[in-house]
Amino acid sequence: MKVIRSVSELRQYSIEQQSNGRVVGFVPTMGYLHEGHTSLITRASVECDVVITSLFVNPTQFAPHEDFDSYPRDFEHDYNLAKKADCDVLFVPSREEMYPYGESTSLSVGDLAYKIEGKFRPHFFDGVATVVAKLFNAALPNKAFFGQKDYQQSLVVKSLSRDMLMGVEIVVCPIVRETNGLAMSSRNKYLTDEQKDNAKILFKSLVATKEYIESGIRNRKKINAYLHDMLRRLDGLKIDYAIAADSNNLDEPNDFEEGSQVVLLIGAVLGKTRLIDNLLVKVPIEKFNEDDRFEEGL
Amino acid sequence: MKVIRSVSELRQYSIEQQSNGRVVGFVPTMGYLHEGHTSLITRASVECDVVITSLFVNPTQFAPHEDFDSYPRDFEHDYNLAKKADCDVLFVPSREEMYPYGESTSLSVGDLAYKIEGKFRPHFFDGVATVVAKLFNAALPNKAFFGQKDYQQSLVVKSLSRDMLMGVEIVVCPIVRETNGLAMSSRNKYLTDEQKDNAKILFKSLVATKEYIESGIRNRKKINAYLHDMLRRLDGLKIDYAIAADSNNLDEPNDFEEGSQVVLLIGAVLGKTRLIDNLLVKVPIEKFNEDDRFEEGL
Repeated sequence: MKVIRSVSELRQYSIEQQSNGRVVGFVPTMGYLHEGHTSLITRASVECDVVITSLFVNPTQFAPHEDFDSYPRDFEHDYNLAKKADCDVLFVPSREEMYPYGESTSLSVGDLAYKIEGKFRPHFFDGVATVVAKLFNAALPNKAFFGQKDYQQSLVVKSLSRDMLMGVEIVVCPIVRETNGLAMSSRNKYLTDEQKDNAKILFKSLVATKEYIESGIRNRKKINAYLHDMLRRLDGLKIDYAIAADSNNLDEPNDFEEGSQVVLLIGAVLGKTRLIDNLLVKVPIEKFNEDDRFEEGL
Repeated sequence: MKVIRSVSELRQYSIEQQSNGRVVGFVPTMGYLHEGHTSLITRASVECDVVITSLFVNPTQFAPHEDFDSYPRDFEHDYNLAKKADCDVLFVPSREEMYPYGESTSLSVGDLAYKIEGKFRPHFFDGVATVVAKLFNAALPNKAFFGQKDYQQSLVVKSLSRDMLMGVEIVVCPIVRETNGLAMSSRNKYLTDEQKDNAKILFKSLVATKEYIESGIRNRKKINAYLHDMLRRLDGLKIDYAIAADSNNLDEPNDFEEGSQVVLLIGAVLGKTRLIDNLLVKVPIEKFNEDDRFEEGL
């Protein structure tokens, strides 16, 4: 596995690969890799001819009070995991390489960036969109792989690639979970063992609410209340949001359409650690009643 | 000369050319080509192996009260001029092709976009940066050619390419002028013959102010006052701005440094037509006085 630190060298590498007819896959990460990340690299190595993984803790997606400085970093650990997962190139740019002239130029995908998670982290998605666009310009991938765990981020990146005509196919991969259901995250390292155990309430609540929807409930307020009630069972969990939304555009209608797809989204703080999780649910189509049909004379 | 209307076809074309080792030049225009544009195409055809010229009147850089609907369009005229100037591909996308999912995603280069011309056209440079980024993503050029007439725009595009790691070399080409000195512009078509004749005051004022600076004046307020006084000789010219600024970053210091480069910038309205023009001036280094040297015993 090759380590590249310069943008121009990475671009040159990608162009060479593509001139030779190879499909370039790209997995952007903030490092401190876990099985969630390696599942993306493995998926990319199956779907593409070469895989570039980037390690870059992007300053512009952190607010001043957030954990940019303390965000976990471990190059050797990342190197070994990426290599094992069949990565071809590890791209490890410095802050100066990614933001050579400061941070004045920025990208915004508009409304999608400022709702739900965006309300709690107002600069987050603009920071993500900006750095992902820059990473795409450096890596020139055919396909890029993102985890479903950052669900709203995956929609932001899809909008970015589509709206800016970047031509990068965005592949969203399933959430990888600990055995107790907790979604894997580099930030889980902040949790004590007890907190880790308690944090399983997020996934349990999502699954229970999925079943509630599948039982025929389509009213959004009812669904949100159900999800909240489940989460409130854990004392000390500060719920930022716990809601159901249209999985395509995060719209929040009064009632979800039969046959549509809903995403259940949670953002919450446990101790000092911010956790997010989500689950997709297909809203059932109500069974056709044969008697009604007969009565209506169809 | 080939006409391409689809983004994916253009990208495919550009990738093919570059796989074959050819340098791709790009000239983005809003059409209604004049000698200013054709000079860019010719320059591109000298410096590059293939030249793509785009014709696209970009809606997002016009304010609602501006002339988007009435902006002059003439495909046949443009086709013939581009062909004569050695263009290889004319890229003529529809609005739907450039903004397939609306206009919510946008790019901003920050402060540079909101000063001078940006004060009078607050959305202009963000609109320009957004569409240029999209056009770069579609055409994937090695070099792009812009006219110096839109001086601030050329700085915005340089920032864009540099900050977003687009790797496109921006080449800024000299202003092409009518015989009376009026800078060529698609909007000159709005001027009556009398207005066209009167409009030569812009270039005359720029040249006179250049000489004023070259005579040793480095105080910005004095220079601005001189430029204003010159322009005021034309009754009915509404001056939006007429100023001297640092040519690198448009900073406005009290006194310009010896040996630095100043840009004189004008934005003004004549009748119903908005005109812009500019001129670069090297601030002279004051002559060393031999007597002083002797007295100081050097």
